[in-house]
Amino acid sequence: MQDAPAAWSDIAVARHGDVCVITLNRPDKLNAYTGTMGVELARALREAAADDAVRAVVVTGAGRAFCAGADVSAGADAFDSSGEGKAQMFGDMAGSGKRQVGGGFVEAIFDSPKPVIAAINGAAVGVGLTLTLPMDVRIVAEGAKLGFIFARRGLVPEAGSAWFLPRIVGLPQALRWSMSGRVFGPDEALSGGLVSEIVAPEALLDRALEIAAELTADSAPVSVALTRQLLWRFAGAPDPWGLLEIDAPMSLERGRHGDVKEGVASFLEKRKAAFPGKVSTDMPSQYPWWPQEP
Amino acid sequence: MQDAPAAWSDIAVARHGDVCVITLNRPDKLNAYTGTMGVELARALREAAADDAVRAVVVTGAGRAFCAGADVSAGADAFDSSGEGKAQMFGDMAGSGKRQVGGGFVEAIFDSPKPVIAAINGAAVGVGLTLTLPMDVRIVAEGAKLGFIFARRGLVPEAGSAWFLPRIVGLPQALRWSMSGRVFGPDEALSGGLVSEIVAPEALLDRALEIAAELTADSAPVSVALTRQLLWRFAGAPDPWGLLEIDAPMSLERGRHGDVKEGVASFLEKRKAAFPGKVSTDMPSQYPWWPQEP
Amino acid sequence: MQDAPAAWSDIAVARHGDVCVITLNRPDKLNAYTGTMGVELARALREAAADDAVRAVVVTGAGRAFCAGADVSAGADAFDSSGEGKAQMFGDMAGSGKRQVGGGFVEAIFDSPKPVIAAINGAAVGVGLTLTLPMDVRIVAEGAKLGFIFARRGLVPEAGSAWFLPRIVGLPQALRWSMSGRVFGPDEALSGGLVSEIVAPEALLDRALEIAAELTADSAPVSVALTRQLLWRFAGAPDPWGLLEIDAPMSLERGRHGDVKEGVASFLEKRKAAFPGKVSTDMPSQYPWWPQEP
Repeated sequence: MQDAPAAWSDIAVARHGDVCVITLNRPDKLNAYTGTMGVELARALREAAADDAVRAVVVTGAGRAFCAGADVSAGADAFDSSGEGKAQMFGDMAGSGKRQVGGGFVEAIFDSPKPVIAAINGAAVGVGLTLTLPMDVRIVAEGAKLGFIFARRGLVPEAGSAWFLPRIVGLPQALRWSMSGRVFGPDEALSGGLVSEIVAPEALLDRALEIAAELTADSAPVSVALTRQLLWRFAGAPDPWGLLEIDAPMSLERGRHGDVKEGVASFLEKRKAAFPGKVSTDMPSQYPWWPQEP
Repeated sequence: MQDAPAAWSDIAVARHGDVCVITLNRPDKLNAYTGTMGVELARALREAAADDAVRAVVVTGAGRAFCAGADVSAGADAFDSSGEGKAQMFGDMAGSGKRQVGGGFVEAIFDSPKPVIAAINGAAVGVGLTLTLPMDVRIVAEGAKLGFIFARRGLVPEAGSAWFLPRIVGLPQALRWSMSGRVFGPDEALSGGLVSEIVAPEALLDRALEIAAELTADSAPVSVALTRQLLWRFAGAPDPWGLLEIDAPMSLERGRHGDVKEGVASFLEKRKAAFPGKVSTDMPSQYPWWPQEP
Repeated sequence: MQDAPAAWSDIAVARHGDVCVITLNRPDKLNAYTGTMGVELARALREAAADDAVRAVVVTGAGRAFCAGADVSAGADAFDSSGEGKAQMFGDMAGSGKRQVGGGFVEAIFDSPKPVIAAINGAAVGVGLTLTLPMDVRIVAEGAKLGFIFARRGLVPEAGSAWFLPRIVGLPQALRWSMSGRVFGPDEALSGGLVSEIVAPEALLDRALEIAAELTADSAPVSVALTRQLLWRFAGAPDPWGLLEIDAPMSLERGRHGDVKEGVASFLEKRKAAFPGKVSTDMPSQYPWWPQEP
């Protein structure tokens, strides 16, 4: 099942079972990032979030690259938004609204109630790599080139990557890749903790779908959504006390829900669970616990 | 030396030299967690904290399991506290009082001035595994099954585990184990960073006692207590400046204490130190530096 | 090029190409730390920061040790500042001024706009090891002995190490090394994540200079400075939103700078970039984004 081609410009969106596969889709440009791509990526993620039939999201690239970074085909002025406003790139990246990150893809991935898996099928540099950092799992195809190349272009790490990258690979590795701007391969990405496995290119999408199933097949949709948000939103908290004030009453409230009755019954009966709860309607009263923009 | 059996209901407490060994003790129920177990665990830890003769705490399980999670023997309503209030589990877990975490085992472990070592002798799932996360060291017996299985029961990670787990194993690994709810073995626990070693079941307790000795035999009791608190309480701080305002004057004040005179003298004389300072009476004026509940 | 010997007392400062090499220089005392050494280290780092000809800093030790910790040659009273005020050590370590960390080496390293590499040529214990934690890369010579030995002297981890160490090696490893106070070798330092490689002693400085080149040769100086500050200052933030409010406009502003025009042009022309921007004059308007002391 695939959306009408006209629906999207720089990405494609298709369904594989209960997984929404978003494909960065400018293959003749190595899927170079554009402001339109960022906006579409955010919209596709928000649509997947709202659709109970979607359990997970996979993001990959069309053709031989994943995303070759920002489109620099305009040459030396590619990043100069004072010219013709063409590099609204960073504005789009950051989103808009009160917190200035309202409409961007970083917040859309962060907010996702479904796991998001990056299937890095080829070159991923600059924003083409940082856009995968708010995702939950990253796997990479053999032969892909990766790089946080900002410093080599005179730029700085963007899209919140100074926060995300150290949480994934640790501060020493994050500093080293980001200051040098060096391009590296899958082996270094794996040993450095950036990706969890290296896969043959032709097997990459199937493997991403397998991981999506691992994360969702036996888990209650509402539990996956809450787990993802609890981990991303409290992993950086200074202490566990604010979390305990939420996870204790949330556990109690979930304990009265049909999901838990089914979870316990199916466990005792040694059968697969059929959880009734939906993300669209069954989130507990504690959710969302973070301040909402007006 | 063992307390009178009547003193405890769901745990047992014994002394091995200067180590307090707390045993989860419902072997016929695979040591399934109960509210009483949580309260007793907290009390045993606070007693160990107050006893200068105790240098470290080991937590293990009786029989073939460590702790098979919450007791679901009540069936599908096991977590429904609206029934007969039986699953006060989460209330007990979270404790009570102003910050709602006052009396619980999470805060009791967190507050401990002695190192706490989990000797995971068998199955540890759900709260049976999350209760080990605030501990300092985790070792596991060959053949044990482990799992953050909450999502498979319709629940969410509790006991502050969304804060603790990423600090121990990193965010990507924490997300993957917690969203899938998958059960895994010692090898995966070791490679994922959840445990520091795998031990033959019959050697597990001895190895835990060896580690307790490693952490305390040559260290000043007051230093161990302060070190443990400094690390747990500042590891999540946004920057190092608040810490520097404490560790500098604390170092100065410790420098005038007999512990340091003995520490330096024993070093220069190449002999084992006999530190005079006690946790009960010699903590520096900076301790505790965090807000106390009224 | 080497400063006049009279310029420094407890360190030496030399230039190797565009790298400033700071040598802890009390070889007859195994470079034991003194208050003077801390003040000089901070001053040398601030001078390197202000000198556009310096692209990176390497810190190493003269003779067979890196730094054998605080100078305890005064014996049991070495840390007793109430005596003759000799151990102003901790005061110097913490600096002075409103935030009490103004003049110290921890803040000088933290503030550095150039990468700082520790070339640990021999024994590094106590403050001799913690002083390397705010640095970006640590490499160690075969045979070196390392230890966070504070607890064995009755002291506590200082110089902000309770914040730095867990960010480098993770909380479990940090707790274990710091509570035991145990001395360990290069293999354990490498597997624990404290150092990134082990090098033959005679090759150590050359290797440190190679790493300095890796981090700077193809990177814009202003980008390296901003990248280093973004990572160190936001890695511990509770969420990415404050960062996104800075990195998005900073990326836009950098996009209009000659550095980015040169970065993109050199990339498209497949030649080495010659970035015009200087740290002393070309930092973007967002820098510094943290509160400045009056």
